[in-house]
Amino acid sequence: MEPRISLVTLGVSDIERAHTFYEAIGWKGSSPDGEVWFFQANGLVLGLWDRSKLEADTGTADGGGWGGVTLAYNVSTEAAVDAVLTEAERAGARISRPAARNYWGGYSGVFVDPEGHPWEVALNPHWTLDAAGNVTLP
Amino acid sequence: MEPRISLVTLGVSDIERAHTFYEAIGWKGSSPDGEVWFFQANGLVLGLWDRSKLEADTGTADGGGWGGVTLAYNVSTEAAVDAVLTEAERAGARISRPAARNYWGGYSGVFVDPEGHPWEVALNPHWTLDAAGNVTLP
Repeated sequence: MEPRISLVTLGVSDIERAHTFYEAIGWKGSSPDGEVWFFQANGLVLGLWDRSKLEADTGTADGGGWGGVTLAYNVSTEAAVDAVLTEAERAGARISRPAARNYWGGYSGVFVDPEGHPWEVALNPHWTLDAAGNVTLP
Repeated sequence: MEPRISLVTLGVSDIERAHTFYEAIGWKGSSPDGEVWFFQANGLVLGLWDRSKLEADTGTADGGGWGGVTLAYNVSTEAAVDAVLTEAERAGARISRPAARNYWGGYSGVFVDPEGHPWEVALNPHWTLDAAGNVTLP
């Protein structure tokens, strides 16, 4: 198995609200069937799909709420961290951790999308972020 | 906010078991502090970290179990789907959905890693998978 991720699918209860949120923060989505939505990201796809259908399709049992997965979006400056959190909040996200310097030498905060999926927005001085938006470990 | 994901962090209860699993399926991990583990993927990073610490850091409440996020790993042939599922099962994953042709015209199955995080392994004839392992929507 090669080290790569092709798709991250987020289960949602309200697909209209969910895709509208990601469009409001600047992503371009499309839906092949009006039910599942896909957003092209950096070499992978973000998907949105009905949470109970995703649960059944995955063959798992929904614990409800958060299940141990947090996404992150890295930027190059502290001001960009602040700006993205503000943009997400305006689009309907909740800030679960305000931006601050953190113990690992970065600066970050967390927003939670309208469906409960959290994104850390971070400046990580230890990782390389290239012009295409890809990150590389040291 | 640009359409990209920098990091997908999976909360785990047993970090040794967790990083050993991803190493067993062929990923190369490193840990800056012996506590969090990072694996370079295609332009983003897969992270493993103590689930209760990730919960606190995210500012969320753990629902326990699955929380509506399923990752996917795309390959180019049905045989590769079968091979990856077999490899994951040998490394300690549980198959939650055996590989089969599915309603959207692909072929896929799902494994669940030792910490409960599911991966769909899929042949998706509608998406482009390039030599670098990146996927592109039609």
